[in-house]
Amino acid sequence: MDAAQIISEAAKRARLANRTLVAASNDQRSAALYKISGELTRQADRILAANAQDMKRADESGMAQSMKDRLLLTVKRIEGMADGARQVADLPDPLGRTINARTLPNGLKLTQRSVPFGVVGMVYEARPNVTVDAAAILLKSGNSALLRGSSSATASNKVLVEIMREVLATTSISPDVIQNIPDEDRATVTALLHARGEVDLVIPRGSASLIRMVVDEATVPTIETGAGVCHVYVDDAADFNKALPILINSKTDRPSVCNAAETLLVHEHVAEKFLPTALEALASHGVILHVDGKTDAIAKAHGIKVELASEENWSTEYNALEMNVAVVKDVVGAADHIEKYGTHHTEAIVTENEDHANQFIALSDSAAVMVNASTRFTDGEQMGFGAEIGISNQKLHARGPMGLEQMTTTTWIVRGEGQIR
Amino acid sequence: MDAAQIISEAAKRARLANRTLVAASNDQRSAALYKISGELTRQADRILAANAQDMKRADESGMAQSMKDRLLLTVKRIEGMADGARQVADLPDPLGRTINARTLPNGLKLTQRSVPFGVVGMVYEARPNVTVDAAAILLKSGNSALLRGSSSATASNKVLVEIMREVLATTSISPDVIQNIPDEDRATVTALLHARGEVDLVIPRGSASLIRMVVDEATVPTIETGAGVCHVYVDDAADFNKALPILINSKTDRPSVCNAAETLLVHEHVAEKFLPTALEALASHGVILHVDGKTDAIAKAHGIKVELASEENWSTEYNALEMNVAVVKDVVGAADHIEKYGTHHTEAIVTENEDHANQFIALSDSAAVMVNASTRFTDGEQMGFGAEIGISNQKLHARGPMGLEQMTTTTWIVRGEGQIR
Repeated sequence: MDAAQIISEAAKRARLANRTLVAASNDQRSAALYKISGELTRQADRILAANAQDMKRADESGMAQSMKDRLLLTVKRIEGMADGARQVADLPDPLGRTINARTLPNGLKLTQRSVPFGVVGMVYEARPNVTVDAAAILLKSGNSALLRGSSSATASNKVLVEIMREVLATTSISPDVIQNIPDEDRATVTALLHARGEVDLVIPRGSASLIRMVVDEATVPTIETGAGVCHVYVDDAADFNKALPILINSKTDRPSVCNAAETLLVHEHVAEKFLPTALEALASHGVILHVDGKTDAIAKAHGIKVELASEENWSTEYNALEMNVAVVKDVVGAADHIEKYGTHHTEAIVTENEDHANQFIALSDSAAVMVNASTRFTDGEQMGFGAEIGISNQKLHARGPMGLEQMTTTTWIVRGEGQIR
Repeated sequence: MDAAQIISEAAKRARLANRTLVAASNDQRSAALYKISGELTRQADRILAANAQDMKRADESGMAQSMKDRLLLTVKRIEGMADGARQVADLPDPLGRTINARTLPNGLKLTQRSVPFGVVGMVYEARPNVTVDAAAILLKSGNSALLRGSSSATASNKVLVEIMREVLATTSISPDVIQNIPDEDRATVTALLHARGEVDLVIPRGSASLIRMVVDEATVPTIETGAGVCHVYVDDAADFNKALPILINSKTDRPSVCNAAETLLVHEHVAEKFLPTALEALASHGVILHVDGKTDAIAKAHGIKVELASEENWSTEYNALEMNVAVVKDVVGAADHIEKYGTHHTEAIVTENEDHANQFIALSDSAAVMVNASTRFTDGEQMGFGAEIGISNQKLHARGPMGLEQMTTTTWIVRGEGQIR
């Protein structure tokens, strides 16, 4: 079978199996997730053995340490996956919600109800925990999952899917609602992205280049996730006692994730006052600073080491302890900078002036705007979604963190007594 | 300038101009639409003169009559466009709605608010009224419109956009929120479909081939509209006094539109009883019948002219007075047929049995399911949306008729007092 056939067959099985998932009650879907959670913990040794194979190949191929960190499974990480599945099980049922209901003058009764997409593809990279996280969210939301992970995690992914399917085989839900897609070559990714009509949605999770490839190639509807060039703007009406912790937290709490800040913007009236402390604090956290001319002058006057930023720096997502710093005229200047270099993910303003905050909100074209809070709060769990399958960086369908509700679509049910037009 | 530059420049102007639209209140946006409505009526002669040029070229090029019908503008059609703009003006503001609001345990106040997409492209065919209909909906919902119509309607589209821009020039809203995209060659369509990052959304309106091309080519997010192979299933528990009018209305009321039915499915237990009357009635409305073997036998016994259906017939959207007819075993048989040949648009069941209705709803994977009502009700105006920019045939973002609310996305506004993670 070629890749297109592999995907077509998998999607057909997933579509047929989906009827068993739609027929299952919320309690049945949750019970299956509880069982999966228990088996993951119980079979930790089997998972670790598979992961050891992947780690061995990673060592042999000279994989970078940061990549190996993502690939590695430990008892603690397996428990994390198991906990995650249980948490998803406990969330409210996203299916069968009434989104809209009305009775028309002609007597027709309209109900708009949440239903699953049907067959959802995931394309992701090294981290094998995505296999369980995604499958759990898709199962709970009534969707069949076609999981195309990285070949570097092939043994880990295979055993994780096996365990989940073994559990489903003991329930009314067909195991074919969770399928591992062969990862030997890129052809299965391409086929998955072109299976329009057979696959309802593909979600990429991983590097900017993976996401870009998916978005460019796919004819199947996709949701762009990821890339965040997030900004912290310190206004002239900022309370520095809030600004400094927000800045440090936004940059250094977890630099590798998309809601970490990449650029600090400071109002010109408070630059002299705020920047020396801010730059010192960032430097003491090991942050490399790429700055504009005005910031450079202030840094030099205080003996703080900085580099002049290149044009490219302003739009770079470092995923590391590096940060751009610029002085701007005011809220509009900050918004203009963000519009030019940002990725519409998350921007924060630190200000005590409500008008400035509202102006910043109105001018921002981003998934989330923080007023006096860290950019790190753009996160499904932090925002109370309970679980997150990714953070949407597009405007279509879902924007910002995506939980269970975002994994549903709707259908209109129209009940009449013979009405015609 | 090449096509990519033309689109890039247009999108940049549209983005900048969008700030004036976002700054405008709902009353200001509505007032602009009222003015546009008035000017369209007042300048009917100017519009008709431009349309006459398009019609002349259509005659010279030997355009088919059905295409010319779509291209033609009359005083009545211009009044229809003007009325439409006024109706859109009178609808509730789709912007600034609170979709979600919560306060987190850490004190963060979250609000999810509806905001415009920003810059929306429309790609459409001959009908010049789409120019005004789409511009009105996009203006009201705070979006800038890049309108790429058909070169066959170039003079009509140009003057319609000119009139709308002339009106906007007298308001606080920049005329650049409505722009005509040059239609001399296909290159501007291609460029529009690839302007990811500059254009937020592209909506195609027109033939199945146009929509397919847009969906296949676009890297900009799109919403697939259109193609409807809709089914009417007459159950063994059907009331024939409802079934017959629903069937005739679904097929013959307006055969050229996507919510017209293409296929009649009849439960085998009532086929002998229902089909003779049904086929006679369809034939008397001039409907050509493509049937399966069982229907063929019944038709022959009653001297009704039919043709045996080819495999291709079952998945054909005729947009004409033609219909497929098949006998099925039961609700599941009907659902299986629909799953195999349908386009997930609208299906109707005629039944007095509530269990059968619910089973049909559960097994249908369509934007709308009608119980004892005509398929023709899948329509924005009929369903009380007030206006419609198209009917989404995909599951992402919007499914079924799309009105003002569907032309918005959301943003999260998070207010804190210095919270960090």
